[in-house]
Amino acid sequence: MFFTLAGIVERLGGELVGEGGIIVQQVAALENAQADTITFLANERYLSKLKSTKAGAVIVGEDLRSALDVPHIVAANPYSYFAKVSALLNSEPDTVPGVHPSAVIDSIARIGDGVQIGPCVVIEAGAVIASNVRIGAGCFIGAGSTIAENSRLYANVTIYKGCTVGARAIIHSGAVIGADGFGIAMDEGRWLKIPQIGGVKIGDDVEIGANTTIDRGAIEDTIIEEGVKLDNQIQIAHNVRIGAHTAIAACAGIAGSSRVGRYCRIGGASGIAGHLSIADQVEISAHTLVTKSITEPGTYTGAYPFEVNRDWRRNAASLRNLGELNERVRVLEKALELRKKGK
Amino acid sequence: MFFTLAGIVERLGGELVGEGGIIVQQVAALENAQADTITFLANERYLSKLKSTKAGAVIVGEDLRSALDVPHIVAANPYSYFAKVSALLNSEPDTVPGVHPSAVIDSIARIGDGVQIGPCVVIEAGAVIASNVRIGAGCFIGAGSTIAENSRLYANVTIYKGCTVGARAIIHSGAVIGADGFGIAMDEGRWLKIPQIGGVKIGDDVEIGANTTIDRGAIEDTIIEEGVKLDNQIQIAHNVRIGAHTAIAACAGIAGSSRVGRYCRIGGASGIAGHLSIADQVEISAHTLVTKSITEPGTYTGAYPFEVNRDWRRNAASLRNLGELNERVRVLEKALELRKKGK
Amino acid sequence: MFFTLAGIVERLGGELVGEGGIIVQQVAALENAQADTITFLANERYLSKLKSTKAGAVIVGEDLRSALDVPHIVAANPYSYFAKVSALLNSEPDTVPGVHPSAVIDSIARIGDGVQIGPCVVIEAGAVIASNVRIGAGCFIGAGSTIAENSRLYANVTIYKGCTVGARAIIHSGAVIGADGFGIAMDEGRWLKIPQIGGVKIGDDVEIGANTTIDRGAIEDTIIEEGVKLDNQIQIAHNVRIGAHTAIAACAGIAGSSRVGRYCRIGGASGIAGHLSIADQVEISAHTLVTKSITEPGTYTGAYPFEVNRDWRRNAASLRNLGELNERVRVLEKALELRKKGK
Repeated sequence: MFFTLAGIVERLGGELVGEGGIIVQQVAALENAQADTITFLANERYLSKLKSTKAGAVIVGEDLRSALDVPHIVAANPYSYFAKVSALLNSEPDTVPGVHPSAVIDSIARIGDGVQIGPCVVIEAGAVIASNVRIGAGCFIGAGSTIAENSRLYANVTIYKGCTVGARAIIHSGAVIGADGFGIAMDEGRWLKIPQIGGVKIGDDVEIGANTTIDRGAIEDTIIEEGVKLDNQIQIAHNVRIGAHTAIAACAGIAGSSRVGRYCRIGGASGIAGHLSIADQVEISAHTLVTKSITEPGTYTGAYPFEVNRDWRRNAASLRNLGELNERVRVLEKALELRKKGK
Repeated sequence: MFFTLAGIVERLGGELVGEGGIIVQQVAALENAQADTITFLANERYLSKLKSTKAGAVIVGEDLRSALDVPHIVAANPYSYFAKVSALLNSEPDTVPGVHPSAVIDSIARIGDGVQIGPCVVIEAGAVIASNVRIGAGCFIGAGSTIAENSRLYANVTIYKGCTVGARAIIHSGAVIGADGFGIAMDEGRWLKIPQIGGVKIGDDVEIGANTTIDRGAIEDTIIEEGVKLDNQIQIAHNVRIGAHTAIAACAGIAGSSRVGRYCRIGGASGIAGHLSIADQVEISAHTLVTKSITEPGTYTGAYPFEVNRDWRRNAASLRNLGELNERVRVLEKALELRKKGK
Repeated sequence: MFFTLAGIVERLGGELVGEGGIIVQQVAALENAQADTITFLANERYLSKLKSTKAGAVIVGEDLRSALDVPHIVAANPYSYFAKVSALLNSEPDTVPGVHPSAVIDSIARIGDGVQIGPCVVIEAGAVIASNVRIGAGCFIGAGSTIAENSRLYANVTIYKGCTVGARAIIHSGAVIGADGFGIAMDEGRWLKIPQIGGVKIGDDVEIGANTTIDRGAIEDTIIEEGVKLDNQIQIAHNVRIGAHTAIAACAGIAGSSRVGRYCRIGGASGIAGHLSIADQVEISAHTLVTKSITEPGTYTGAYPFEVNRDWRRNAASLRNLGELNERVRVLEKALELRKKGK
């Protein structure tokens, strides 16, 4: 696949500065770009690297319009423009419709047009696979679950019964959607299981990373709204609701019944305790545990600052006496205050 | 499935207050309950919500016996009573015994009566699947492993060779039981692998969440005692022993050779370092790392309190000098003390 | 399998003290050893336990040469010697070459000599499986991916297209290699996906734990160098490079584009933020988040010290005012200083 710069601008907009006939075949990183590639510069910090790039063309923002000799495309948002160029140059091969003979599809499942189903896939009764969906090898789709059109499940995804996945979803390998939420009640020294009778509802344009788990609801559904992007190894507990267009980095965990707003950014390995409500446009830093609801947009952090181990030992030991230290300072303040007054 | 209130009390005990002929078909949450549902109130906090519920009946504790107009069942433990009612109303369909023709079962595996084995399941030589076990599509059961009666494995569970799973276990998709523990020895600049020759022994009535991993022992077995409940994405390292009826929330990790007591509650994304011993009835808070053995029941916590990022920046910077601050306060105390004496 | 002590020393070196004709059949832990087993003592701490061991023989370091009555082998590194003895006594059964008839192998995949492929394995076009590789049931190997000789994939491993795995790799169940990195760009209120066109390159002698995920690169490859050992449930983001012989404990996460040096030891559930560089021979403690590059070898820590909950509450509350406390101490110091001067 290749395009001229003029051809790219024709399709995607932006303003071309320099020779429009230059051909690019692939996107590249600034440092290792070849003459037939196009790269981008989202950040002035890397301007020095740009001097030595061998890229055939660069995507830049308005501010760098005249800073470059190399042919460039000026775009309002260079990074998203780059995403579009990369999608153009790396278009997925067309789906080859068909069902592999080793797939086991219940006779009362409904399979749409143009669907591609790989080897060893299992689809249970009442499931609905809409048109142009691709289901990789070894996936399991439980009874009555629905996958809307143009979605893609990579190999070895598991979807329990009674879940719905929206259109254009991408679900990576090892993801498990709809396992039982962790509902147990202590009864005379033994845990009783609370049946998890809700499902999971996933909106359109959601991406779900490898080995991420989204549990079904205890009574009502767990809900992932449209446009949510989940990285790998995320745990979404029962009855959570994730607002539209929120992005969550790897290894984060959201405990039961919490609601996360729209356009939030949740950092890696962070956690949100159960039954909380997080406003829209909240950013949670990596490794932060949120233990109270958040009502205002903003960035919230709670990671322990790392140090050389011997410094950490000293400071962490003092941390164990911090309440007391606080008290000692109060005593000192009082002592000085008294003396002042006594003067 | 439906029951009258009188029918429920007949089966499960408790005391009925109000019209016994009312029919309920499903359990529901307080807010969204319909007339044909039964809900519960475990916590007085939600009493106000109860005023507006449309539920046909409510399960309450002794203290709310006379606080309600709506028909209710008084139970000693409303939450566990609710669990039992939900189990009654949502009884699983009977197992349909049989082995799917695509399953690959070694001729010297033993398969009990009433067993249901899904498509693409693989069972190796010497494995024993006891009566009424259900094994979902794509599961793998290694050589010589045993699954006791009435257990259920959802799709795509992996059990390595030489492991035993007790009766009535529930194992969710993506769980991996019996992979090698992380045993390596440095030898002249290269890591040597320590063969992991132990197995995994899992007691009766254990539930294991999606994508949870339990490693086999280095020499002796890793042990999960009866009634343990594990949420999703938990990591249990080699030679750990988890005591009976302990519940562990998602994303927690227990490092090698540690022993966790009975009736413990381990919070989400918490960690227990290796070679420790945790007493019975210990509660570990979410995101807490336990680095020393715990000998007394109680709640233990070690999570960094989250804040607005700019406050965190200031406080975390001070934390890096906390040992020094401690010293400065000591100097101040001495100075004042000296002055007092010098008076 | 069994060996005499003399036979072990003949094969593995070390110095025999005592009766060479003693036969050992298995390795054992100090406490539960039987007469036909060999154990080891890496640490003087356990010397007392040695008095009561029933082991037929013990592996010890130079320092304990004359401290024992029981026959022993003196080795420079008792733990790695133990690893070698265990490997000797627990040699894997020979691979039984062959392709299970239920495996689905594209006609233009290349399968080497002595390869063993289990049931329901799927291998796509252009994949190369070198000689003596073993691929467990349910594995998926995407188009064009390569597995070098003598590697072993346990059941239900997923390898996306365009990845390479070196020789003698061990990959445990549920691991996912080559899923898309988490690359998204905000564009007018919606996330655009950045195509992830790089692959994953894994060197020789790498072990990858159960449910660990290694994402493919955004543009260039994600790289795991030779001899790296990864425990379970680790997340390696796109374009990370892990240096040779680094060992990473379970549940750790390395964010995008970070480079970890050689011979590092990364603790459980620790994290390394994106775009950082970690020197060789760095040790990161468990639950530590690294937020800046590390240029010097050493041990780095950032875990909150756990406490009884009521102490934690007091100290954590003070932590929220630590910047202010710092300021208050400064004021006190000034007050005293002034007074001193004013004297």
